[in-house]
Amino acid sequence: MVREHLADMVEQGLVTPTGLISHGRGEAFDYLMGEKTIAPALEAERAAAAFLLKAQRPMVCVNGNSVALDPKGLIGLAKAVPAKMEVNIFHRTEERMEQLIAYMESQGAEGILGRNPDSRIPNLTSDRALCTKEGIYDSDVIVVPIEDGDRAEALIAMGKIVISIDLNPLSRTSKVASVPISDEITRAVANITRFVEELRGNDAEIERIIGSYSSKATRRDTIQCICDALMSEFKED
Amino acid sequence: MVREHLADMVEQGLVTPTGLISHGRGEAFDYLMGEKTIAPALEAERAAAAFLLKAQRPMVCVNGNSVALDPKGLIGLAKAVPAKMEVNIFHRTEERMEQLIAYMESQGAEGILGRNPDSRIPNLTSDRALCTKEGIYDSDVIVVPIEDGDRAEALIAMGKIVISIDLNPLSRTSKVASVPISDEITRAVANITRFVEELRGNDAEIERIIGSYSSKATRRDTIQCICDALMSEFKED
Repeated sequence: MVREHLADMVEQGLVTPTGLISHGRGEAFDYLMGEKTIAPALEAERAAAAFLLKAQRPMVCVNGNSVALDPKGLIGLAKAVPAKMEVNIFHRTEERMEQLIAYMESQGAEGILGRNPDSRIPNLTSDRALCTKEGIYDSDVIVVPIEDGDRAEALIAMGKIVISIDLNPLSRTSKVASVPISDEITRAVANITRFVEELRGNDAEIERIIGSYSSKATRRDTIQCICDALMSEFKED
Repeated sequence: MVREHLADMVEQGLVTPTGLISHGRGEAFDYLMGEKTIAPALEAERAAAAFLLKAQRPMVCVNGNSVALDPKGLIGLAKAVPAKMEVNIFHRTEERMEQLIAYMESQGAEGILGRNPDSRIPNLTSDRALCTKEGIYDSDVIVVPIEDGDRAEALIAMGKIVISIDLNPLSRTSKVASVPISDEITRAVANITRFVEELRGNDAEIERIIGSYSSKATRRDTIQCICDALMSEFKED
């Protein structure tokens, strides 16, 4: 069903054909994790909520695949924090930007940024660097679902806390992110939103979570879960 | 480059959008195996060549993704054995069948089957079951690159030796196949073709390979290779 929906979104021009290949790569890792939120992912989602609540200028950044997969979830997360939202895409055309922004507005998004970029992410060539000053450029904590490695690195180099949602725990994005979340986007966004509501106002717990969080330990535990699942079929041998 | 080529093939109607997602899933496993032929895959490719040389009615079956990814390699393999070739697709329309067959002919294929199906694979519903009697139906050893699990199972139920090329060693196709090969199609087909040339006429070696081959052992070794690669980053910890 998700696959047919994405194929429709390609027809409409919101998702690119290479976005479908990227989705397939994610599906393989989701499959290896049993198509559920594993414990290390849940821990990362809790840390993500803590960082978002502590932020001065939190941001939820969206692209073609994330808009196609979970528009309402992403809008709900931005409203809960509250955080600004901005559309930022790899294969940029003005027409596709307008389509994605209009689609998000049709799903209930308000004040979504990206139409009139007036800044650039440093160290990124091409139109991928375009962003707004009041949005991505000035943000201090940024959620990037299904982000490419170059842009994730460039955002880290700007000094931001980068929260990635990327099913592949070995991707460059997952390796460089401050909080890499290896979980399917719909589940990840729902969990972060729930933790935002739970932790709001509990500053001591927010500080404790941030102080004890380790991205490397989370990634190692994620990969251990995948290996255990891979080998389980042969355990009795 | 492969991704852009596949996106073009979608535009032309040879590959389906869901075929792109399927390709992405394969890419993830290829990445986990280091984008090279690992030792257990090479062993499976050698066994595949032995089974093809021993066959009475060998067959190379192709679909949209395999035609898009390695037309010349597949034609070369069929000529080397020699084996018959037939187009058999999941999302079947007469137009798409004709496009795929014409494309293979433009790449040098001769006598390719599939235009006029006169048989059905038992236990399969829908047009996926359609095949020719002289081709798929009567074959005894069949190569199925990038096959779905239902059809792989149905071919096994017909008593055939099924050689699958599927990067995911955990897929239903890999689990049921007589010889599951977890390798990228271009590399797999080139290796099988080379082994066909090497083993031709050496009946004692062909029998030895077939007698000592275990699909379960090969799959277990493949998964062990993937786990070793996954954990290598954390070995020094």
